[in-house]
Amino acid sequence: MLYLVGLGLSSVEDITVRGLKIVQRCARVYLEAYTSILMAASKEDLESFYGREVILADRELVESSSDTILEDADKVDVAFLVVGDPFGATTHTDLIIRARSLGIPFEAIHNASVLNAVGACGLQLYNFGQTVSLVFFSDNWKPDSFYDRIKENRKIGLHTLVLLDIKVKEQSFENMARGRKIYEPPRYMNIETAASQLLEIEDLRKEEAYTEDTPCVSVSRLGSPGQKFVAATLGELSEMESGEPLHSLVILGHRTHEMEIEYLLDFATNKIKFQKAVETEVEAAKELQPPVTADEDDD
Amino acid sequence: MLYLVGLGLSSVEDITVRGLKIVQRCARVYLEAYTSILMAASKEDLESFYGREVILADRELVESSSDTILEDADKVDVAFLVVGDPFGATTHTDLIIRARSLGIPFEAIHNASVLNAVGACGLQLYNFGQTVSLVFFSDNWKPDSFYDRIKENRKIGLHTLVLLDIKVKEQSFENMARGRKIYEPPRYMNIETAASQLLEIEDLRKEEAYTEDTPCVSVSRLGSPGQKFVAATLGELSEMESGEPLHSLVILGHRTHEMEIEYLLDFATNKIKFQKAVETEVEAAKELQPPVTADEDDD
Repeated sequence: MLYLVGLGLSSVEDITVRGLKIVQRCARVYLEAYTSILMAASKEDLESFYGREVILADRELVESSSDTILEDADKVDVAFLVVGDPFGATTHTDLIIRARSLGIPFEAIHNASVLNAVGACGLQLYNFGQTVSLVFFSDNWKPDSFYDRIKENRKIGLHTLVLLDIKVKEQSFENMARGRKIYEPPRYMNIETAASQLLEIEDLRKEEAYTEDTPCVSVSRLGSPGQKFVAATLGELSEMESGEPLHSLVILGHRTHEMEIEYLLDFATNKIKFQKAVETEVEAAKELQPPVTADEDDD
Repeated sequence: MLYLVGLGLSSVEDITVRGLKIVQRCARVYLEAYTSILMAASKEDLESFYGREVILADRELVESSSDTILEDADKVDVAFLVVGDPFGATTHTDLIIRARSLGIPFEAIHNASVLNAVGACGLQLYNFGQTVSLVFFSDNWKPDSFYDRIKENRKIGLHTLVLLDIKVKEQSFENMARGRKIYEPPRYMNIETAASQLLEIEDLRKEEAYTEDTPCVSVSRLGSPGQKFVAATLGELSEMESGEPLHSLVILGHRTHEMEIEYLLDFATNKIKFQKAVETEVEAAKELQPPVTADEDDD
């Protein structure tokens, strides 16, 4: 059996009791460590907590040598540990499709991921539209497919969760060209870079998917003891110091509930400015659109 | 300290190790049991697993007597257990706002919820739009605010997660009128009722937010040993027998990835019909919209 075990967000103890029991009895335990990281635990911490060896699975192993991971998994139990929930990244679906084609049974042990835990900032999860990803820009590579999606979400008043790039075990172009297996230090996108990149694309596209006055929430170290939310405009966030990783960002939509704002104001650097930014959005939306239908019946 | 502890989806062992330790040391432990239920565990199972008493918190206690729950929580630790993740329902945000106003510190212990675990059906979570809720219709009460939201999602090609009503500790009108504290047996909406209600509203509104040919996935007993997905059209789902609760439903959008469909086909009752339903949607979307982004010229 292949077990895909979600580890949750931060510490070794964020694994579920069921997940822990499975990990402790599996023949081999792999840790996927390139789409995300546990904030408060290293491979060694996990090994000491589980009382057993953990094999680090990098992108190459998972994407090109998945059969190594799946070897004998029809006879013995193999665990594949994933930060957050096992279905957070496309890569893991690949692994399951491969297992299925080999006739290997599998089971997922779910856990929290940023996609649901982000509710801790006070925004209601049912008011979120599609999630987007933002990668590190380079001088000549600034992919902006997120832009149209944020615009789609905001047009109908929904919040957008922006997932920020992490670079683990990346080679420099020079090292890659020369075939040298030397890797750059890991990089995790912070809030100020994310906000600046978002504004850079708005400056190029000028379709007002958002502006520097758009109300946002920065989400730092979600689910860890150092968790921090900051409610501010996108312009303000481009100048903040967000500190240690991991970070995500939420761009608000105009369909905000009073209770969401009440909750968020506690995290605002400038309450008056933030409240005004929200009100401006709501007013602008009213002018553009026909009256909205009655609010969802809360049942 | 007030701890909001997510229990995950199904069994007592779906709690995290950290959550379990907290529950075992709290002075009082409440279980919220009206917005969802653990599928494979009763209050007694939880008490035996934790080795301690668990107080059932019904809607009345949480919404009208939250100060009972919060009593002394500035001095002792109190746990409030929530099926799924603590931020899945608005009610819990209310409780936190109340705690905050009383100066009581709080912490959330996150866990899986249907909002992220639904990825197990093979649809990519970043292709989901806003989530909607569907309540039991009665003869003269058929709230349909979900309809516009599904339409919004599908217009831009996104999937919609439909959360289905559960009725726990409800009184009949007669018992309520007479002040008798007699409660109806719990009711959990199944897939066939959900699909029929959705089609009933489409019949009334006729805006083609979806039709009986729209491809969907039924999600039954997610995260439990009896978990089952069925990929079929909405019309087919209105005639299925979905069995034991809990259920949710996903209405597909046209922005489907090849891998999503490959994964889903394994769950299709009629592979050819399902594939054709998906292709029809994709073709219809191409005809209606310019190739790259969603249209901007309406509304």
